[in-house]
Amino acid sequence: MLKEYKGELLFLVIAMGAYLFMATLNISHNYSYFAVVFGIFGLIVTWKLYEKVDEQPDGNEKMREIAESIHDGAMIFLSREYKILGYFVAGVFILLMIVISSQKGFWIGLWTSVSYVVGASCSMLAGYFGMNAATSANVRTAQAACDGGKAKALNIAFNGGAIMGLSVASLGLVGVGGLFLLFGKSESISVITGFVMGTSSVALFARLGGGIYTKIAGVESDLVGKDEEEISEDDPRNPGVIADNVSDCVGDTADLGADIFESYCGSMIAAIAIGASMSAMKFEYMALPLIVAMVGLIASIIGIRTIDVLEGQDPSAALRNCTFVSAGAMLFVSFFVIKVMGLSSGVFIALAAGCFAGIAIGFVTEYYTAGAPVMKIVEANSTGGATVMITGLAVAMESCAIPVIIITIAIYLGSEFAGLYGVALAAVGMLATVGITMSVNAYGPIADNADGISEMARLGQETREITAGLDAAGNTTAAISKGFAIGSAALTALALFSAFTQAAKIESIDITQHKVVIGVFIGGVIPFFVAAFTMTPVGKGAMDMVNEIRRQFKESPDLMEGTSKPDSAKCIDISTQSALREIIFPGVAIVMPILVGLMLGAEALGAMLMGATLVGVLLAFFMSNGGGAWDNAKKYVEAGNLGGKGSDAYHAKVVGDTVGDPLKNTSGPAMNILIKLMSIVALVLAPIFI
Amino acid sequence: MLKEYKGELLFLVIAMGAYLFMATLNISHNYSYFAVVFGIFGLIVTWKLYEKVDEQPDGNEKMREIAESIHDGAMIFLSREYKILGYFVAGVFILLMIVISSQKGFWIGLWTSVSYVVGASCSMLAGYFGMNAATSANVRTAQAACDGGKAKALNIAFNGGAIMGLSVASLGLVGVGGLFLLFGKSESISVITGFVMGTSSVALFARLGGGIYTKIAGVESDLVGKDEEEISEDDPRNPGVIADNVSDCVGDTADLGADIFESYCGSMIAAIAIGASMSAMKFEYMALPLIVAMVGLIASIIGIRTIDVLEGQDPSAALRNCTFVSAGAMLFVSFFVIKVMGLSSGVFIALAAGCFAGIAIGFVTEYYTAGAPVMKIVEANSTGGATVMITGLAVAMESCAIPVIIITIAIYLGSEFAGLYGVALAAVGMLATVGITMSVNAYGPIADNADGISEMARLGQETREITAGLDAAGNTTAAISKGFAIGSAALTALALFSAFTQAAKIESIDITQHKVVIGVFIGGVIPFFVAAFTMTPVGKGAMDMVNEIRRQFKESPDLMEGTSKPDSAKCIDISTQSALREIIFPGVAIVMPILVGLMLGAEALGAMLMGATLVGVLLAFFMSNGGGAWDNAKKYVEAGNLGGKGSDAYHAKVVGDTVGDPLKNTSGPAMNILIKLMSIVALVLAPIFI
Repeated sequence: MLKEYKGELLFLVIAMGAYLFMATLNISHNYSYFAVVFGIFGLIVTWKLYEKVDEQPDGNEKMREIAESIHDGAMIFLSREYKILGYFVAGVFILLMIVISSQKGFWIGLWTSVSYVVGASCSMLAGYFGMNAATSANVRTAQAACDGGKAKALNIAFNGGAIMGLSVASLGLVGVGGLFLLFGKSESISVITGFVMGTSSVALFARLGGGIYTKIAGVESDLVGKDEEEISEDDPRNPGVIADNVSDCVGDTADLGADIFESYCGSMIAAIAIGASMSAMKFEYMALPLIVAMVGLIASIIGIRTIDVLEGQDPSAALRNCTFVSAGAMLFVSFFVIKVMGLSSGVFIALAAGCFAGIAIGFVTEYYTAGAPVMKIVEANSTGGATVMITGLAVAMESCAIPVIIITIAIYLGSEFAGLYGVALAAVGMLATVGITMSVNAYGPIADNADGISEMARLGQETREITAGLDAAGNTTAAISKGFAIGSAALTALALFSAFTQAAKIESIDITQHKVVIGVFIGGVIPFFVAAFTMTPVGKGAMDMVNEIRRQFKESPDLMEGTSKPDSAKCIDISTQSALREIIFPGVAIVMPILVGLMLGAEALGAMLMGATLVGVLLAFFMSNGGGAWDNAKKYVEAGNLGGKGSDAYHAKVVGDTVGDPLKNTSGPAMNILIKLMSIVALVLAPIFI
Repeated sequence: MLKEYKGELLFLVIAMGAYLFMATLNISHNYSYFAVVFGIFGLIVTWKLYEKVDEQPDGNEKMREIAESIHDGAMIFLSREYKILGYFVAGVFILLMIVISSQKGFWIGLWTSVSYVVGASCSMLAGYFGMNAATSANVRTAQAACDGGKAKALNIAFNGGAIMGLSVASLGLVGVGGLFLLFGKSESISVITGFVMGTSSVALFARLGGGIYTKIAGVESDLVGKDEEEISEDDPRNPGVIADNVSDCVGDTADLGADIFESYCGSMIAAIAIGASMSAMKFEYMALPLIVAMVGLIASIIGIRTIDVLEGQDPSAALRNCTFVSAGAMLFVSFFVIKVMGLSSGVFIALAAGCFAGIAIGFVTEYYTAGAPVMKIVEANSTGGATVMITGLAVAMESCAIPVIIITIAIYLGSEFAGLYGVALAAVGMLATVGITMSVNAYGPIADNADGISEMARLGQETREITAGLDAAGNTTAAISKGFAIGSAALTALALFSAFTQAAKIESIDITQHKVVIGVFIGGVIPFFVAAFTMTPVGKGAMDMVNEIRRQFKESPDLMEGTSKPDSAKCIDISTQSALREIIFPGVAIVMPILVGLMLGAEALGAMLMGATLVGVLLAFFMSNGGGAWDNAKKYVEAGNLGGKGSDAYHAKVVGDTVGDPLKNTSGPAMNILIKLMSIVALVLAPIFI
């Protein structure tokens, strides 16, 4: 099954040979130096995959037209976002250089800043690749469903997602590996932390801007469409519908990708930073996270190719099994790698604990967003919208418990068997197979879009059943991915926290001291505040959008008849404007660590990070699982139960879903970014707090 | 104005003289020993007040009949709750004796357990007094509004509340003062912690059972009544209406009272416990909280009497000004007391910081539940129920920030100027004038009931305007009280946490250690879990209730005509049953500290308390303020804005209010109890974790 990659494998072998040769000449060699090679290999595989997807037929003219609208909408959004992001990155570049230079000299300052820009660029590039692939694969999936059947459609959709997955994994290896190559042996290894800060900046903008855009565009057109005019979510007569399709791509491809990319690089760099302070076998400890990531990349490619074998299975099962194949392969090889490197088997336990924790959190998330708790919400319907809300809130709150307990178990095992380093390595273990987990994530919006296109282009009952089936599988995986993203963010944030305490030379952070208590409380407030802030613009923008859609329905009665075309561009513009206007403020999240660190000291800052991580993780699970559960409760009724569409139960469900949407797509994911970003800022600026 | 208390003042003077005489004989005297005397004095004043209220006319037969139904309902609930509570207290008595005896010997074990029972009894007694007074004052307030005018009605309602307020303050002084008298000078001062645990048990049962009862009874009859049959909340044709009136008394009198009583005694005992470990001036430090509480009692009585002067003012302003008078008087006298006792003025700063923090939190709460943010929710109406929910959630989350910052400022000032002791004393400062703050709290349900009675008994437009005005003031004060209750619970929990760290001889709790991190995370999960748990039975019980009310409306069509009487007893029974069935489980909250303490050690337990306090306080503000804001948004529309009752905006509001009700009345308040209870369990059982 790997034979189509003969050329790349050859490249890999030659490159390794060249490296080994160079290594014997002057650089003391280490397997970790192959990271860049593996990364480039991954990128070539990605390119091949893109070509393979792109050469598939893209359907009739109507389909191409819809697909082009979605593609253009996505690109408009990305380019506007990246433009603002560009100014932001430039600003931080200068600030970072000034601050770090003043503490650690000009060169370290410069390299940290450069490393910051490289991190931001890699993340943006991954998002760009992913979005291009997603908006190319969606229409091709719909066409494959039309003339190739379910297995073929699943294959294309998944391969489209895999482009994003492999881009993330490969660019992470190229970036982190490249910097490690340059600075791994020097005293200035700390410059590498700039890279994560770069990925963090992109993730912040992507998650907030994208999330807000997503929900203004999506939910509200949904609300107006479904609830008021009784027309379908994917009816092209609803002008918000293209914006809705764009938003699915933006939210679950570019945004989630930037989030996971940040965790992926963050966990590696935290492990490297902690490894750098080890007394014995320091270099092996520093190299291990990169080596595990290389193993993970190959394991992911194997997992992705497994879809060719499993494409006949039920989509959900196929996606899950691909993930298991990769995780198993990664752990199997890593076990021997750790043995060969001469590291203790405790290190492997930490790695495995993280890997299993990621999978377990996925299962729990699936239970709460698609299992028995959803039926509780469904049943609550009988007494109106308010009980749907209350029951959903209760489910959401309950759903925080087990995932957090799983995280504490991973922390316990990691620390017990490998100390501080163990926590960071657990995070690496959870994220090493990012190639496959991100592929599964990115599959979701492609399937969703394909379903939308097949409905809009009226592709016939049979095709629509196939795409609907793929979409349903995507909804489950989307919920699981959100859980996974939170879990990995939590472990990454804790790993970065540990790296920070070492970088700031903190002996202990004693919560019986009042400044530490104050730090914990300030930290706890921030997630609530950011959540409130990220929800509000949704409210504001949503109203503008609803009014626009209403205006269009009112002013052109032809719209309902389908004889005139809605002004989708106007809707996209409203959401873009209001999304981008509001994402400036969360910069506050960057200011708080600096403020607390300077005013109350490094210990209080550490306490703040802990408080923020705790509350941020809880709120993230709360909002993400609650949103998922409401969503599926609505889908259950939509499928014809309890009276189906249009019934009272359905209207009550729509309210729940509409409330849940900004929670799971905007505020919830913002928590992941928030907790990592604050830890990163603290870590990068650690020198000024000593 | 104090001349009517000539007899009591004489008693006070004679008792003080007798004490001084005894003191010169053998007991080394200290002003704190007067605590019991002051407490008894307070109880006598309370009794006088009760007589004064009780001798007011109680209206016509219809009014008496309604009042009797409410009184009986309240007493049925209290007696069932206290019965279950009795078994619980007996069980804990035995367990506590076994555990403490095994560690510290039989006598300490016995006295700790006795102290536990005394604490529980004092709290129950205060609740019983308060409920009796409230169900007596409600109908008399309505009658006074009818024939005496607004000022007179305000006076009676407030005096009815003052009975609860003074009962709390006086019984706290008698209980804590009595134990201090017995054990203050001995080595076994730790037995006094049993008292707080007793108050905690009552508060737990009261808040959970009462809260659940409240909302099943209230909200849902509300929902069915208002939303479905378009009849008023206080229409006697709605069979849930008596249960609703009972629930107001239960929720804001007995339950809030038990909560505040626990904070009041908890803050004093934490300060005493920390004082006991001081090296210099130990006895003065231990005595100060009691002396401040005595000053606070007298200041509260002065504040309560001030209503006679201010009764002509707008009710909200009058209530607020009475509170200011008491706080001012308490601080003024305490300043000199601290000087006379020879303690540093830093101690006074801590006390004042707590006092001001309590007032400031009240203002912030008022802003979020009655100010500009409510209008945001009102405006969100225009696009349906979902945006009301989203906007409300955003307001609720934002509203956590400032109160928590205020708490951190109080912690900072307290610790900076008086160390660990300062935090406990800040809590004492917030709670010393509990006599007046609790009076204002308890005024709310009396005014609400009076309004209900005047509507049910058809007392005429003019009377109903007066009672509606009193009720509106009560709604504002209720929101403020909830904020105050959370703030005081937070400070008390932190004070108890400090006392625990001393009792468990903990040197430091270092959050860079993994067991401590795990403790923090487990602690953070508990409030979410308990919140989920306390919401769910509301869902279940609410549905039974709704179905019952629907059944009654369906089976007796006369009900809508008002010609047949609804079966209120059946509704009361449903809510009582389901409330009491569910309150057994939160005992889990007692088990967790023991489990974590034994398995992960005392440091991890301390970390758990910190995590739970942080998350518990945030969730409490979130739920309480959110509920309050939705409530007032509904009231705003109800008052005739945006189309008034029956409009689309109104229906959207009702959804928000219905969701907010269990949040602000059940789950939110449960947080206060939870965080204090866990700290108390840890403190009492500290010996077994060393």
